Amino acid sequence: MAADELSPALGPGAAVLAFDVGGTDTKSALIDRAGRVLGLRRTTTPIDPADPAASVVSSLAELALAHLAERPGLDPVAVGISVPGIVDEADGIGVFASNFGWRDAPIRALGERALGLPVAFGHDVRAAGDAERRLGAARGYDDVVVLAIGTGIAGSILLGGRPLVGGGFAGEIGHSLADPHGDRCACGAIGCLETIASAGAIARRYTATSGIAVDGAREVLAAAAAGDAVAAAVWNDALDALADSIARLTATIAPQAVVIGGGLSQAGSALFGPLRERLDARLSFHRRPELVRARLGDDAGLLGTALAARDLADGFTARIADGGGS
Amino acid sequence: MAADELSPALGPGAAVLAFDVGGTDTKSALIDRAGRVLGLRRTTTPIDPADPAASVVSSLAELALAHLAERPGLDPVAVGISVPGIVDEADGIGVFASNFGWRDAPIRALGERALGLPVAFGHDVRAAGDAERRLGAARGYDDVVVLAIGTGIAGSILLGGRPLVGGGFAGEIGHSLADPHGDRCACGAIGCLETIASAGAIARRYTATSGIAVDGAREVLAAAAAGDAVAAAVWNDALDALADSIARLTATIAPQAVVIGGGLSQAGSALFGPLRERLDARLSFHRRPELVRARLGDDAGLLGTALAARDLADGFTARIADGGGS
Repeated sequence: MAADELSPALGPGAAVLAFDVGGTDTKSALIDRAGRVLGLRRTTTPIDPADPAASVVSSLAELALAHLAERPGLDPVAVGISVPGIVDEADGIGVFASNFGWRDAPIRALGERALGLPVAFGHDVRAAGDAERRLGAARGYDDVVVLAIGTGIAGSILLGGRPLVGGGFAGEIGHSLADPHGDRCACGAIGCLETIASAGAIARRYTATSGIAVDGAREVLAAAAAGDAVAAAVWNDALDALADSIARLTATIAPQAVVIGGGLSQAGSALFGPLRERLDARLSFHRRPELVRARLGDDAGLLGTALAARDLADGFTARIADGGGS
Repeated sequence: MAADELSPALGPGAAVLAFDVGGTDTKSALIDRAGRVLGLRRTTTPIDPADPAASVVSSLAELALAHLAERPGLDPVAVGISVPGIVDEADGIGVFASNFGWRDAPIRALGERALGLPVAFGHDVRAAGDAERRLGAARGYDDVVVLAIGTGIAGSILLGGRPLVGGGFAGEIGHSLADPHGDRCACGAIGCLETIASAGAIARRYTATSGIAVDGAREVLAAAAAGDAVAAAVWNDALDALADSIARLTATIAPQAVVIGGGLSQAGSALFGPLRERLDARLSFHRRPELVRARLGDDAGLLGTALAARDLADGFTARIADGGGS
């Protein structure tokens, strides 16, 4: 096993290329027919404001060449590309992404032209949710919410095993109203959940009140545990806001489980213990979801993107076997 | 056209019997092959605490005989039965209903035995939502939330044109957290939306603060319009809570429209105008749903129940045509 292999392996299937394109970094890898994730690398995403879609896609073509040169003979048959923002999977369009500055960018078509392979184009967070359901902590649940709590809060809602898309707008749990009298969020709305309960917000709010600079939410939790009243209040607000938000999801969509990943989930029982207690206190007849820690870590998006590329490849194979071909 | 016919007609299809069984009243009607709703009646639901399921089902058998005696030759081929509470449509079970006091009651099986016809068993609010989507104000929307705001607040979430069930627990928007510091709801939880924004709550809260007895929310709205500060505050709280709740649904499930019915929707532009403004102020990049007034009124549940019975009859017909039969 090469050092750059990811665990868990994806199992047997088509060889594909996968790109998880973020506003800062792009993760890319080749997946072989055994399902091994090979050559995983993280590179800067180059964004030309004059033509962000073209600059991103041409960087993917370069990365593809580098991967193929490294593993000659691997011959991927499809490519997965995932991006943040508002994504229209059905039409292969990047509708909007503040990090890239594009609007209605035909990424799938551009990618297919640049790479010469069929492209599965999708949303990074929905890809990560799909990976958690097929390979990780959300396995076995048909109706499940996957939350990544880090700098911000990203969410993916899976119903009947399929991601809820809502024209590209569903699952924005981090930008759901938590406090009508709260701070303005970077998105422009007031009191979004991620202004209170993201790891980024926890550090920021602690520093704003105490005047003490911290390196991240981890330090705030440690301070709270050591008796720092400001840290305890900030952490308490975050737990309350998360519990409120999960209680509302419970009443409306009734997931069987909520899977929590991202930096904040590393707090482990310091997060899950009090969160379970607070959620329980907010519910009555409702179906209580299990609160489960995510298993795939930061690479869930890349794994989900690879799975989407494999699904696309399987579709081609099935249609050819049927005597069709398109 | 008989005086007891409902509008809109359901269109051509199978003749069926429909029962919308509430905790107090049962509505029932025959639907003929032209889709006319005939003999609509409202009768008291008899509930024997010793065996609530048996008492309800035997009352439906009596009602069926009365309907058939009134319209001989109409020959329904299927029956629809809808009830409140937690309903497992797939297995035909009334999981729980506080009004009836049953738990895991096999209503579909009991109904089929008592009535001698195949039974489509479902949830009253999801049936109403389905009717609004197929015949009423939610027509043309694949992703839509239907809210009935009256004594309480009931919700139905339709995604991809199908009701979200969540094991029977989804759509409880009225029992979603609105105010963590609010009053205890009849359901046992704190600060549910319906403790602030239902027509019942608006009247109750006004009386609690002002000491003035009112006949319903309509009087509170009139008082607010006439300059009564307490009435204005109560109405303002209701609008804010509704806007908060719809904003959260927008961020998480991104419906194309929210259809509002029930007694409160009779306020018309006094409700929809300020609600649209407040919703707009709470959103940023999100997809703004249209806010639409429901069209079918109180009989939406019965109409949806009839549609479910017809779907069941169509399924039988299709299977017989296929040479099957089961």
